[in-house]
Amino acid sequence: MYCVIMAGGSGTRFWPRSREGKSKQFLSILSKKSLIQSTLERFRTIVPWENVYVVAKKSQQDEIEKHVSKIPSTNVIYEPVGKNTAPCIGLAAIFIQRKDPNGIMVVSPADHLIKQKSRFSKTILSAVQLADQKNGLITIGIPPGRPATGYGYIQIDGEVGSIDDIPAYKVKTFAEKPNLATAQRFLNSGDFLWNSGLFIFKVSIFLKALKECLPELYHGLMKIKRYIGKPQYENVLMQVYRQIESISIDYGVMEKIKNVYLMKGEFFWNDMGNWEQVYQLSMKDKNGNVLSGDVILLNTKNSFVSAAKGVVAVIGCEDVVVVQEKGATLVCKQDHVEHVKTVVQSLKRKKLHKYI
Amino acid sequence: MYCVIMAGGSGTRFWPRSREGKSKQFLSILSKKSLIQSTLERFRTIVPWENVYVVAKKSQQDEIEKHVSKIPSTNVIYEPVGKNTAPCIGLAAIFIQRKDPNGIMVVSPADHLIKQKSRFSKTILSAVQLADQKNGLITIGIPPGRPATGYGYIQIDGEVGSIDDIPAYKVKTFAEKPNLATAQRFLNSGDFLWNSGLFIFKVSIFLKALKECLPELYHGLMKIKRYIGKPQYENVLMQVYRQIESISIDYGVMEKIKNVYLMKGEFFWNDMGNWEQVYQLSMKDKNGNVLSGDVILLNTKNSFVSAAKGVVAVIGCEDVVVVQEKGATLVCKQDHVEHVKTVVQSLKRKKLHKYI
Repeated sequence: MYCVIMAGGSGTRFWPRSREGKSKQFLSILSKKSLIQSTLERFRTIVPWENVYVVAKKSQQDEIEKHVSKIPSTNVIYEPVGKNTAPCIGLAAIFIQRKDPNGIMVVSPADHLIKQKSRFSKTILSAVQLADQKNGLITIGIPPGRPATGYGYIQIDGEVGSIDDIPAYKVKTFAEKPNLATAQRFLNSGDFLWNSGLFIFKVSIFLKALKECLPELYHGLMKIKRYIGKPQYENVLMQVYRQIESISIDYGVMEKIKNVYLMKGEFFWNDMGNWEQVYQLSMKDKNGNVLSGDVILLNTKNSFVSAAKGVVAVIGCEDVVVVQEKGATLVCKQDHVEHVKTVVQSLKRKKLHKYI
Repeated sequence: MYCVIMAGGSGTRFWPRSREGKSKQFLSILSKKSLIQSTLERFRTIVPWENVYVVAKKSQQDEIEKHVSKIPSTNVIYEPVGKNTAPCIGLAAIFIQRKDPNGIMVVSPADHLIKQKSRFSKTILSAVQLADQKNGLITIGIPPGRPATGYGYIQIDGEVGSIDDIPAYKVKTFAEKPNLATAQRFLNSGDFLWNSGLFIFKVSIFLKALKECLPELYHGLMKIKRYIGKPQYENVLMQVYRQIESISIDYGVMEKIKNVYLMKGEFFWNDMGNWEQVYQLSMKDKNGNVLSGDVILLNTKNSFVSAAKGVVAVIGCEDVVVVQEKGATLVCKQDHVEHVKTVVQSLKRKKLHKYI
């Protein structure tokens, strides 16, 4: 059993705290540990460190080494450039296949918040059994607590049984992020769950699925595999990555395959997608404010205000996010947090590289 | 004829641009020159530099010297501590009296915005004539253009004539900053004008009025006067200032004296009292925004956003003032700008002296 942590995200939605070399998974949000460190900790009781792989972007090598020092350095796999989740998981799969062709891999994003760790472990272990029994691709679906528009959804068919009290279902369809009306319909229907981004499958089954659904990616990966440990490896990797399509595992594989199952993840899960979610998850004072650093508020309610250095004063505002960090300040109405990533694009256009 | 520029203000309403050593009169707002430099320029055609006096706080000596290098250094009078306008004008009066007992002084705040300079000069020169003719205290009143609640008002009685086409009136009462309903009533009545803070009178007449209305201050000033140019001067000044009451010329003198006149100041005047006024006076883009520095706005309207250093991004906001300067950021709804000075008090309480 192996664990693959996908740590290649750029996380521009947490600007100005997240920066090019320091994306979301490296931030300490709601905890002293970084998100990737908390993710590693979550798998500590499930697999030994030598069976944990991390896939990261080459450009983040310095930062990643600081956060994943517990696992063998040879288990950190670098992509020359991010190409979404299907190539990322595929690359980890060929490394694991070389070591253990019968391995089962548990794939996890590096930057989500999960609580109720023992229930999480139990769910993962049940999913591993299911993957073994069914020779299928297993997803973890989270029962939705609200009509969230920021998450993908998975629609389930009938229950196929349960393992250790964790119910399992056949998957009917994957749905992209819905609008509010659709999200409400999903919530009411009872057969749509949040797509947690957690996947469990045998390496062999996944690679077979890749061969079927994304043959170009599959052949590229097989080429890379032949050069692992050889001097030409980096060049071949670069060459393949230059050509392959950027595509998610959901869209590229999961939606096209019949043999896909879902295990119900009844633990607390949040993808920590933006500042508004961090606000929602934080302890608030009697005015509904969340403060950190040297902050002065007057007549201000339901706001998230953070000053990493320096001081921030907010007067007469409501429902805002204010984050001051490394010479940059974000002031954003909470219902506009999805636009934060656009700021990073504007900074690029304006060549303000220092703040990206 | 002498000019006295009152430059002892602390101007905390422009935090975080204004700081303890750099108060409002030293800022360059809406112009490359600082407000005090623009004020000096305004008097250049009215009196020679050697007849211009500046009264400032001792603690701002370094900064003031940079801005008023044109006038003789002996014309810069320092107060050990600010005690509002009556002591400030009184202190200047005894210096001028020593030099010219028959002098007429024109008193002006250092930090107001005035346009239509030739009309301003003409008004001042007419007021000097009126002061000479009437042996009274002359104020300049600005015809109100809106029901401003941030200004004091002066109510006039009948017209007493005009000098060089500038009408003069007997003053009936002084009114403090009104609420909106009262301000509207003042505006409708037609006999209330904004109190510009500009005063014109013979030194002898002013000191006589001081003796009558504020005898303790008068006697303190007479004591100081005896030590001008002597080694004990600083000690005596300090001793007197420690004891005297902090009081404005309006409240301490003008309201109590019968022989007070007003000349109508039909030039553009603004006291630049806060960030919202600066916003109103600035050129706006098509979304009603005023920007300076490296600023990125998304879905933002009618806002004032300034980044002296670093970068500021504002998303989804309306009617806000955002000012980033020297490690501090202010985020303030425009209808709350009067509370900016409270931030400075909070910073003192929190001992964040670096940002005061």
